[in-house]
Amino acid sequence: MAIKHVLLVGGTHGNELTGVYLIKQFEQFPEIVRRSSFKTSTLLANPQAFQLGKRYVDADLNRQFRPQDLADPTLSSYEAQRAKAIYQQFGPKGAQPVDLTIDLHSSTANMGLTIILASSVIFNLMLAARLVSVNPDIKILYSDLSIDDNPYLDSISKFGCKIEVGAVAQGVLDAALFQQSAALVYAALDYVESYNQELSSNQSNFDQQRGTDSLLVYHRVGIIDYPRDEQGEIQAMIHPRLQFQDYQPLQPGDPMFLTFAGETIAYQGDSTVYPVFINEAAYYEKGIAMCLTEKRLLNF
Amino acid sequence: MAIKHVLLVGGTHGNELTGVYLIKQFEQFPEIVRRSSFKTSTLLANPQAFQLGKRYVDADLNRQFRPQDLADPTLSSYEAQRAKAIYQQFGPKGAQPVDLTIDLHSSTANMGLTIILASSVIFNLMLAARLVSVNPDIKILYSDLSIDDNPYLDSISKFGCKIEVGAVAQGVLDAALFQQSAALVYAALDYVESYNQELSSNQSNFDQQRGTDSLLVYHRVGIIDYPRDEQGEIQAMIHPRLQFQDYQPLQPGDPMFLTFAGETIAYQGDSTVYPVFINEAAYYEKGIAMCLTEKRLLNF
Repeated sequence: MAIKHVLLVGGTHGNELTGVYLIKQFEQFPEIVRRSSFKTSTLLANPQAFQLGKRYVDADLNRQFRPQDLADPTLSSYEAQRAKAIYQQFGPKGAQPVDLTIDLHSSTANMGLTIILASSVIFNLMLAARLVSVNPDIKILYSDLSIDDNPYLDSISKFGCKIEVGAVAQGVLDAALFQQSAALVYAALDYVESYNQELSSNQSNFDQQRGTDSLLVYHRVGIIDYPRDEQGEIQAMIHPRLQFQDYQPLQPGDPMFLTFAGETIAYQGDSTVYPVFINEAAYYEKGIAMCLTEKRLLNF
Repeated sequence: MAIKHVLLVGGTHGNELTGVYLIKQFEQFPEIVRRSSFKTSTLLANPQAFQLGKRYVDADLNRQFRPQDLADPTLSSYEAQRAKAIYQQFGPKGAQPVDLTIDLHSSTANMGLTIILASSVIFNLMLAARLVSVNPDIKILYSDLSIDDNPYLDSISKFGCKIEVGAVAQGVLDAALFQQSAALVYAALDYVESYNQELSSNQSNFDQQRGTDSLLVYHRVGIIDYPRDEQGEIQAMIHPRLQFQDYQPLQPGDPMFLTFAGETIAYQGDSTVYPVFINEAAYYEKGIAMCLTEKRLLNF
């Protein structure tokens, strides 16, 4: 089935300026995201949070897309309302349903150029594999949490991913990451275009034509919080040797935190992991100092 | 005259976590900032902004220390009230007047380790010169704006400075910058200790004993805003070649901004300058893309 409508989203978090200004650029120069075989729409998802220079007004918009919440008329926070409006416009029963959603984020962690997949439907894997073939520095972060734990905006369509770039401070527009994110979006749109054209010329199911492929993914296996006291106050910092070391191997016994008393706390696991989202500013309040991943090869 | 009371301040901006957690550490382990010849006090200046994870609640606390504002009972924003309370406690006519204030800040710009002097009284220059002799990587940023344009917290005492470290995102605690800031504070306290002891052993004015000294300072000469449209919306980003190049020479004709249409805007001045606070997140709303400085040698 051809992809007929692609939605590019920025500003789901209002202080992640890369996505916000990419969307503004795409709206100013729509020809750069226009392709012949599908429609491209753009969305500044949380305009009020952007105006306030905040991640969100009342609650994290990127956690508002549980089906039961979207159907609940009593939820009235600004972001719950935004989620319902977005779903009513672009969701499967919406006015302009989309087939693929690409949601543009940034992180204070050293995420480089990351594609986050919350669903392993084949098209998502094919898209990710193509993007890695275009730029081998791209990392694929995969999480198989259920939608209840992963109620992300990109779940409104059958296919979707998040682009997560960093390190960049909240409220800062970094031109290099802006350009790299733009290049990733263009490569994704080009892939959709070639996918549609291949499908059209074969008059058959693309999935049945393609060979097997494989994709190296960093599979989320858990989270680690900061050491805290009874009041929830953090008692340690990310160890300086771990700071900015996202996607690098962390071995049992390696330094993980440094307490304010000057003591090192080591990683206590029993196998090598690859931490990501190390010291993400927005995750202090979520109780996440880093996410742990394992490297896995997905064959599809 | 001996220094009898030193005030260490953090969290003047609630989302600059280096200073916040240094103050918490000093309060947990007071012996590390205790010296024999003077009293050391600590202050978490804007606790409500810290709780909210914001720079400020109503207004920038570090712009609330104009004498006329401190004397104005009608000013009632949270930060105006905080400023008056701080001044009443630690100001010259306060309950516990301080002689020297060191205010700990951080920046999303690549400020490295910077001492900001808003007053060139000799003691400030001697302190700065000592800190540079301990760590030659330290930069001295000097501004001779009047108190009306510089109503900073460290103006409550005769002597004072700000310590500005970066690059670090708002809401992020970076262990390396935390340790470097701590070392700077210890060196400053050690200098005050040696100053007091010298004064005491000479039974005379320290200023009259000392030889001449000189200090390389980056003297603030102006600011540059982002190119904006009529609505105030930014139309360009810091050029990728300028990002993180704080304190590096910027020549006439060098790239300064990159517009969303892809055009480079060059620096139009007629002499070499040294930009600082390049792409500071908190300065977008102040209309400052960077501050321009000139290198000058201060003899004193």
